[in-house]
Amino acid sequence: MTKAKWIWYPGDFELWLHARTMMRRDERGMYIPPIWKIDSCHPNVKFRKIVELERGETVAIAANGRFNVMVNGRYRYDAATSFELEAGRSEIVVSIMNDQSLPTIYVEGTTVHSDESWSASYQNNKWTDAAAWIFDRPEEPPVLYRLATERIEPIRSEAAGPNARLLDFGRQTFGYVELRGLEGRGRVRVFYGESEEEAQSEEFCETFDTADIGGETSYTVPLGRAFRYVRVRTDPGLIVRDVGALYEYLPLEYRGSFRSSDPLLDEIWDVSVRTLHLNTREFFLDGIKRDRWVWSGDAYQSFLMNYYSFFDEAVCRRTLIALRGNDPIEIHLNTILDYSFYWILSLEDYVLYTDDTDFIAMMYPKLVTLMEFCLNRTNENGMIVGVPGEDWVFVDWAEMSKDGELCVEQILLCRSLEIVCGFARQFGHENEAERYGRLAVELKEKVLSAFWDEEQGGLVHSRVDGVLNRHMTKYANLFAVLFGYLSSERTETVKREVLKNERVQPITTPYMRFHELACLCELGEQEYVREEMRAYWGGMLKLGATSFWEEYDPTAEGAKHFEMYDRPFGKSLCHAWGASPIYLLGKYYLGVRPTAPGYAAYVVEPKLGGLEWMEGVVPTPGGTVSLYADASTIRVRSAQGGTGLLKFRSSEPPSAVEGTVKRIGDGEYELVLERPDVTYEVRYTASNLNS
Amino acid sequence: MTKAKWIWYPGDFELWLHARTMMRRDERGMYIPPIWKIDSCHPNVKFRKIVELERGETVAIAANGRFNVMVNGRYRYDAATSFELEAGRSEIVVSIMNDQSLPTIYVEGTTVHSDESWSASYQNNKWTDAAAWIFDRPEEPPVLYRLATERIEPIRSEAAGPNARLLDFGRQTFGYVELRGLEGRGRVRVFYGESEEEAQSEEFCETFDTADIGGETSYTVPLGRAFRYVRVRTDPGLIVRDVGALYEYLPLEYRGSFRSSDPLLDEIWDVSVRTLHLNTREFFLDGIKRDRWVWSGDAYQSFLMNYYSFFDEAVCRRTLIALRGNDPIEIHLNTILDYSFYWILSLEDYVLYTDDTDFIAMMYPKLVTLMEFCLNRTNENGMIVGVPGEDWVFVDWAEMSKDGELCVEQILLCRSLEIVCGFARQFGHENEAERYGRLAVELKEKVLSAFWDEEQGGLVHSRVDGVLNRHMTKYANLFAVLFGYLSSERTETVKREVLKNERVQPITTPYMRFHELACLCELGEQEYVREEMRAYWGGMLKLGATSFWEEYDPTAEGAKHFEMYDRPFGKSLCHAWGASPIYLLGKYYLGVRPTAPGYAAYVVEPKLGGLEWMEGVVPTPGGTVSLYADASTIRVRSAQGGTGLLKFRSSEPPSAVEGTVKRIGDGEYELVLERPDVTYEVRYTASNLNS
Repeated sequence: MTKAKWIWYPGDFELWLHARTMMRRDERGMYIPPIWKIDSCHPNVKFRKIVELERGETVAIAANGRFNVMVNGRYRYDAATSFELEAGRSEIVVSIMNDQSLPTIYVEGTTVHSDESWSASYQNNKWTDAAAWIFDRPEEPPVLYRLATERIEPIRSEAAGPNARLLDFGRQTFGYVELRGLEGRGRVRVFYGESEEEAQSEEFCETFDTADIGGETSYTVPLGRAFRYVRVRTDPGLIVRDVGALYEYLPLEYRGSFRSSDPLLDEIWDVSVRTLHLNTREFFLDGIKRDRWVWSGDAYQSFLMNYYSFFDEAVCRRTLIALRGNDPIEIHLNTILDYSFYWILSLEDYVLYTDDTDFIAMMYPKLVTLMEFCLNRTNENGMIVGVPGEDWVFVDWAEMSKDGELCVEQILLCRSLEIVCGFARQFGHENEAERYGRLAVELKEKVLSAFWDEEQGGLVHSRVDGVLNRHMTKYANLFAVLFGYLSSERTETVKREVLKNERVQPITTPYMRFHELACLCELGEQEYVREEMRAYWGGMLKLGATSFWEEYDPTAEGAKHFEMYDRPFGKSLCHAWGASPIYLLGKYYLGVRPTAPGYAAYVVEPKLGGLEWMEGVVPTPGGTVSLYADASTIRVRSAQGGTGLLKFRSSEPPSAVEGTVKRIGDGEYELVLERPDVTYEVRYTASNLNS
Repeated sequence: MTKAKWIWYPGDFELWLHARTMMRRDERGMYIPPIWKIDSCHPNVKFRKIVELERGETVAIAANGRFNVMVNGRYRYDAATSFELEAGRSEIVVSIMNDQSLPTIYVEGTTVHSDESWSASYQNNKWTDAAAWIFDRPEEPPVLYRLATERIEPIRSEAAGPNARLLDFGRQTFGYVELRGLEGRGRVRVFYGESEEEAQSEEFCETFDTADIGGETSYTVPLGRAFRYVRVRTDPGLIVRDVGALYEYLPLEYRGSFRSSDPLLDEIWDVSVRTLHLNTREFFLDGIKRDRWVWSGDAYQSFLMNYYSFFDEAVCRRTLIALRGNDPIEIHLNTILDYSFYWILSLEDYVLYTDDTDFIAMMYPKLVTLMEFCLNRTNENGMIVGVPGEDWVFVDWAEMSKDGELCVEQILLCRSLEIVCGFARQFGHENEAERYGRLAVELKEKVLSAFWDEEQGGLVHSRVDGVLNRHMTKYANLFAVLFGYLSSERTETVKREVLKNERVQPITTPYMRFHELACLCELGEQEYVREEMRAYWGGMLKLGATSFWEEYDPTAEGAKHFEMYDRPFGKSLCHAWGASPIYLLGKYYLGVRPTAPGYAAYVVEPKLGGLEWMEGVVPTPGGTVSLYADASTIRVRSAQGGTGLLKFRSSEPPSAVEGTVKRIGDGEYELVLERPDVTYEVRYTASNLNS
């Protein structure tokens, strides 16, 4: 048979799924939709295909919506479920409309079949390639898409008050609680807890379910929930013999790995991956209890963690499409100024890691309209400022002024301009490339001269009405370092006077720590960062965490750890941005990173950072890069190919079994990794444990 | 109790209803969605109200969608159906999302209630006034909106083949056929006909229904249909004792009227009003059988007819909102270049007749983006051309070149620029006003000099690559006359050499005849136009028409009249644009028209056009203007007020009982109508029957 697939207008499935998914945040019985503009899929679309048949055939058609079929310009009134095509050339046009759900069709004949080779239009008289994904069965349209489920059981069950039991599922999870062995009638209440304290608190637990049981023997709650603990309380006339759950998850391959001489670091890696997986669903969510929304700043980090763990490209695309929505853009992504820029930064990472240029080409027009939207919000200095009442200038949850020109926002805008310039050039839009490139150069120059404070040795926070606010914050500085905007001299100054200066306002959220620790790793501070990871993430583990939190204050005690947003259990205990060790360990310890799209070229620069040994796997689009390193041996192997470059330091002249080690500086060496599936082994003498 | 109403983001109800309605076109069992981009309502909106309460109260809330309530910045988890408000100042914010239907809420407390005084936002961090309409009962949300229905019965029933009966409902109607007194089981087939021939043709009737009856005693078809005739055929085992229908209609007041010494003209008026009413539904449709869509060029005429019959403002607003959709505008309205302009022209008429400036203010941003879209499609001469493959240059169903710069499109663009300029000035956008005004002046000058052909005495059809196509068509000329773009000298020339010149390609569609006949009336040709109406519309009546047609060819015979689009019954026999006599008789015979918004000032200039007498009523926003005229008496009375100006010609000095007749020229007189509810009677001597 043919390889028919359900097809839709590109982006429509993702926008439809996004809207569906964003409606599932429930807090104490009340739904909380996102606080930003959400775009719908196009209700009215058409698909076209020209076929040349040797002989006539019957073509079956299925659709989610009201549709018609036109062949060579004439309606085929008989085409309710199938139609006949004659031999020869035929132009098939299927028009479909659905104002409540995703318009999508499935066409399957002997040779004719719907797939990405069809054209699609949302009736704007422009055509593009249709989109498809995994949906290849006529009885399973994309609107039936559900994540996978798997039955799980609690590891512990105990009495918890009159007619109540507390169940412990052993670790943080997500799914649908099943009440089984029901006897009698009455109301049942299910209270969820990411912590035991939360499940025990009927008054303050963030989520609960209530159901009136009247004769059924089992009941499954309708909405997936985040929990480790569940407390079930029934009316006296009702008995619940057994409680289990359906764990719901996106099937993902665990392609990355990390093991080392430090078991705590290994555990941090494992719990990070679990945390990321739980939040990697239809889209990259911020947290599974709350907000269950797609935030650009959070997703920017999840993308990067994903490249070092699951390397799932599809969830990246879904998330990027959902975040951007449709034109016109009237408000920053998630309403947040910085979040527009993170989306642009994410696009650059996406193509660097995956080489999926087609996707970038598809998004390019929306990249330009987003950039134009941002540029329309720049002032006479070419600097972007938040529009009061409209734009949320976020940066981080920390005390800081949000008025006027924030240095960090200009740095993010500047990098975004460079990225759009690069794509414009790549896709042949020379005028746009020239313009964005020029704006980037001008802005960079202005920003670095306006905000640099020689005395404090860094970029100061902001400028309001032409007057510098000399408050020193780390944000602009760390991005300037990460983007390579500072001379090596200034970089050293920033490292010393700002990033490692305890008198400078510290970063406390795991969100901004992601960038801070990455920046410190870029500056060779792997040993310091490892201690930070042990203390911060290790601290959560010591408190029994089975997933990483939205925020962690080492000085808090007991249930105070669970407070946030003025609510006793407001804190998300399974938050994607808590999983940053995946990225840090993969990129800066195993040291693997692409230097050309899709790992056509890449660098391997292992840094033990105080570890005796480490080994791990970093996924690539078509394979993996595996690495082992200790103080005297480095073994690396690519299962994909591409030109790798192993970089390392050695105090003694090193040797290699395969390939030729090249000395490139004082104690600095390189080995070109050319052959796939060959283990390159280097014997060397680590100059210190951090190298 | 309070006056609570269901509220929504402005335009959302209309867009939601439009999408729903546009999915109802069915042709021989196949759905035909519109062939242009359709916009959805916003899925994610919020509403806000600040209240000051003397004492606390309970506030009930109903919603179509998932929602939450925030009071003074805090979620009210208890607000599933109601919440408590304390005395004092409270800011209430209700957020709601619905990705399948219209998000709308209903809030009702002792004093607090949802209505247009609330603010609304589609989560773009901008606020505007919420919208509401007739929905003031919590159990009847706007998504349950249905037109009214009324039981009707056929006037004739006869055998029509084995197991089949033909029902004649006496005249063109729309609704749901009811099969009653069902006995037995089996399939029933219902064939609809706007003509008897169509209902009798199972093979070619445009619409039919099929149902399998299995025990029920009555059955109503699910989709409203256009028909006068219905043929019902059953399987042998099934008996249908009785057939009726539910006539579905928009309740409208028949506020305009026309009676005269010519019974044929009276019948033409009556059938025109019936035709218009059938097509005036959720929106102004083109035809009730086909397309059942909202077309801008058709609606432009329906608006004007409506002002002389029902004066229903709400259906105008619904239609204008639906046609324009949301930004970004990517394609002309209905994909047709000219149709973008008719929408702009319709706005000007709307405010002139109704004085509903608020609505124009609400649409103003979309008016500007539409104009900018059009201007982006102008060439180096500032003239608009169709983009091949994207824009449909329609003008009329007639042989003509559509290449290059069509003169008529430039005339329409020019008038549109003038209108946008006027609104821009009115709303204080001086820069925009200046720009559009300048563009209009420049374009008018260019067009009138480029296309005027002294030899032929009119504006020629088009110019391609700088070369005039000297084909003479009437379109540009008649709009140039209607818009007052020609000197009186040139106007006379155009009338003689183009409009009344039989060698110039005649206009055959009732669509473009609307404008042609209006233009001839403007030029004083009421007598000629009356003969045209008698011949053309009277011709349809002679053939038994009970509503007016999409097209009528006096030379056709028998069932050939029903053919169109290569289908034996493809022609719509109840088409809104067939009802133009309403407009012609009201505006150019009764001669009533506003000269300031909402009839604050108006003119009454009766023209008997060969009639011995006529009388009629023209609706105004707050009343009516009633008129009687014969060759010696004119009586006019306004039930609203406003300053009217009666204009007439008399060969002898006239006299008036009320007011003072003023002579303003040779045989020309005026009488100011100042007092409401007073009959102004003039005795005069008609200089000829046409005056």
